[in-house]
Amino acid sequence: MDRTQIEATVLDMVNKAKAAARVIGAMPAALKNTILLEVGEALIAQQAFILAENAKDMAAAEQKGISAAMLNRLQISEKGIKDMVQGLREVAALEDPVGEVSEMRRRPSGITVGRMRVPLGVILMIYESRPNVTIDSAALCLKAGNAVILRGGSEAINSNLALAKVLQEVLAKHAVDPAIVQVLSFTDREGIDCLLQQEEYIDLVIPRGGEGLIRAVTEKSRIPVLKHYKGVCHCFVDEDADQEMAIRVILNAKVQRPGVCNALEGLLVHREIANEFLPKVATALKEAGVRILGCHRSCLLCDEMIEPAGESDWGTEFLDLALVVRVVADLDEAMDYIDRYGSKHTEIILTRSYERSQRFLREVDASAVMVNASTRFNDGGQFGLGAEIGISTTKLHAYGPMGLKELTTRKFIVYGAGETRA
Amino acid sequence: MDRTQIEATVLDMVNKAKAAARVIGAMPAALKNTILLEVGEALIAQQAFILAENAKDMAAAEQKGISAAMLNRLQISEKGIKDMVQGLREVAALEDPVGEVSEMRRRPSGITVGRMRVPLGVILMIYESRPNVTIDSAALCLKAGNAVILRGGSEAINSNLALAKVLQEVLAKHAVDPAIVQVLSFTDREGIDCLLQQEEYIDLVIPRGGEGLIRAVTEKSRIPVLKHYKGVCHCFVDEDADQEMAIRVILNAKVQRPGVCNALEGLLVHREIANEFLPKVATALKEAGVRILGCHRSCLLCDEMIEPAGESDWGTEFLDLALVVRVVADLDEAMDYIDRYGSKHTEIILTRSYERSQRFLREVDASAVMVNASTRFNDGGQFGLGAEIGISTTKLHAYGPMGLKELTTRKFIVYGAGETRA
Repeated sequence: MDRTQIEATVLDMVNKAKAAARVIGAMPAALKNTILLEVGEALIAQQAFILAENAKDMAAAEQKGISAAMLNRLQISEKGIKDMVQGLREVAALEDPVGEVSEMRRRPSGITVGRMRVPLGVILMIYESRPNVTIDSAALCLKAGNAVILRGGSEAINSNLALAKVLQEVLAKHAVDPAIVQVLSFTDREGIDCLLQQEEYIDLVIPRGGEGLIRAVTEKSRIPVLKHYKGVCHCFVDEDADQEMAIRVILNAKVQRPGVCNALEGLLVHREIANEFLPKVATALKEAGVRILGCHRSCLLCDEMIEPAGESDWGTEFLDLALVVRVVADLDEAMDYIDRYGSKHTEIILTRSYERSQRFLREVDASAVMVNASTRFNDGGQFGLGAEIGISTTKLHAYGPMGLKELTTRKFIVYGAGETRA
Repeated sequence: MDRTQIEATVLDMVNKAKAAARVIGAMPAALKNTILLEVGEALIAQQAFILAENAKDMAAAEQKGISAAMLNRLQISEKGIKDMVQGLREVAALEDPVGEVSEMRRRPSGITVGRMRVPLGVILMIYESRPNVTIDSAALCLKAGNAVILRGGSEAINSNLALAKVLQEVLAKHAVDPAIVQVLSFTDREGIDCLLQQEEYIDLVIPRGGEGLIRAVTEKSRIPVLKHYKGVCHCFVDEDADQEMAIRVILNAKVQRPGVCNALEGLLVHREIANEFLPKVATALKEAGVRILGCHRSCLLCDEMIEPAGESDWGTEFLDLALVVRVVADLDEAMDYIDRYGSKHTEIILTRSYERSQRFLREVDASAVMVNASTRFNDGGQFGLGAEIGISTTKLHAYGPMGLKELTTRKFIVYGAGETRA
């Protein structure tokens, strides 16, 4: 397509999305839930069609020589469809946040003022290869009363269009505007660029993917962007920590699922217990297959278990069985280190000290700050938000896991009896 | 200054601000309040110095041939200083939002999760000529635990630096990092451009000024921007409205202070009462000196009181004794009009109908939606937020008047006892 066609297509999409946002914004929860459950049924009924469209993407990707890991993420399996259906059921079961009224108070003027939770409007999702994001994101946006425009990876275009078709057929069956969920039907990069200029129509952009994608979207977008940057999570082991518990928590944080953003990437150990604790934890980590890069002191204490860390290793998001270790003088040095190398994702302290637990909770700036618990708990499900659409590591609008509520906003409502301002 | 010097100066400022943010973020409310009250005392004690520095700006502005209105906004009077002091006292009296913990709940895993209200970090204020914004904004940012960088109009540079000096001397007296409040000390435009790239250091930009300023900042900024666009506020007079009350509310909304963003700019009248109501309201508005531009029908009904409106008049922010009037068929047509021409600021319905009041409250998308009350109530003070730093007309983070709470965010905190994720 040429530039004029792209602009015309995008403008048509955003206009349709804005109109559809009014429809979904006013839809009662019962109908939204029925639609979500029926989409699940339709995914199963149309499994053959979806797998066939996905096979086209897989064939094209293989021809292009795409890596096995990428192919794996691109593939939709029967199990993958079952997972999508399960996800739809879970979202249908969540409480509808729209319409909640809070903080209603009579003011001295006589008016009664409160806040009503309302959808954001139109959300643009930009994501990479995994086609299941199409259904997962659409379900969350729809349940929160938003219209959504989906722009997945170009290699997944047939899969994404197939999934959107199934979804839109259910909407059409209920005589509901199918533009509530739209997939960008072409893969030219100019399509994204043009969408990111539509601040009059789109209320929020959520990029899901690597740091490069998020930075590129932030640079180009005039629309507010919810950013989920990397997770460089730390654990500070205080001088009086329960050492057995510490080893258990550290192993869980690093080893249980090393490739995710809430996995542990850096260990800070109080110098008073370094001699005793470091060899123990290093042994446990080595047994679990973890590569350890450490400061000079920790290398001396642990012989060959710890390799010397280079300057660039501090603050690295390994996403793998690897981490850095540093011996620190006290809580202040630990917090300075976290301030310098952390990514505002998840930071934990292991301690028996009331005072230091409180200082850590108050003073450390991260989306989740924890005492004596694994970093792996920073997750919408674990925190009780239900399904999550991402974990925000910037502070505007949402900080930490984003559930349905974070896909809404609150407007002020006023009940009066003819009051005027003096 | 050349580009390299500007970049070095800006980088120095943002580094200092980030360090200062940790200091103010952890400061107890009592000390913050003492500082605010002492700044008030210092403003009075150093009034001669402030007025002398302001006189330099005034002289330079006069030489440049700046308009009388601009000169008026630039001038600091003794009354102006008293108002700043009063503002400081009001902010000191507000409850400190920082540290509030809410939604603490035990989760099935055993961990206890809640949310702690924390400062945003570093806020950049960009504003136009009025130097009182320097003190007002600094007070709100400081009370909410944030460091602030102020970039006022270049014509007010001496006034702003003088005010900041008074403020910083109070900070220094308490041995507190003076970089909590910094004024950009030079007026080159590249200074703003460079600041707007510092997303690693600055958490939020708040432009205060005309639409042009806000659009320019939004286009250039990589940092989230809180936008206060124009206020094109409407009133829909329903067929069964109390007509005397309607005239009273409409007059208040249009006439009480026509130059502000929550003043009425458009009147929509149900066709069932147009014959009776329009001549009455037009007479009242004309008596108050209001120019009325109307649709064909309203012109017919009101002879010479209403001039025909041109297409470009609909949706205009007059900020003056003028408004547009249109006769509409019903609530749906009124809401379609508001959706098309409104600016998501303030929309009101005057009605006796329960059903239509509820539909209007639910379905109209604006930062404040009201039944039977004047648009003029959309204000932080009137809504009970205390002093406000602006009225957001976009939906991310804040929608409507922004008080202290809107200058903070919430992080998750977790109390555990060694829990790990299964």
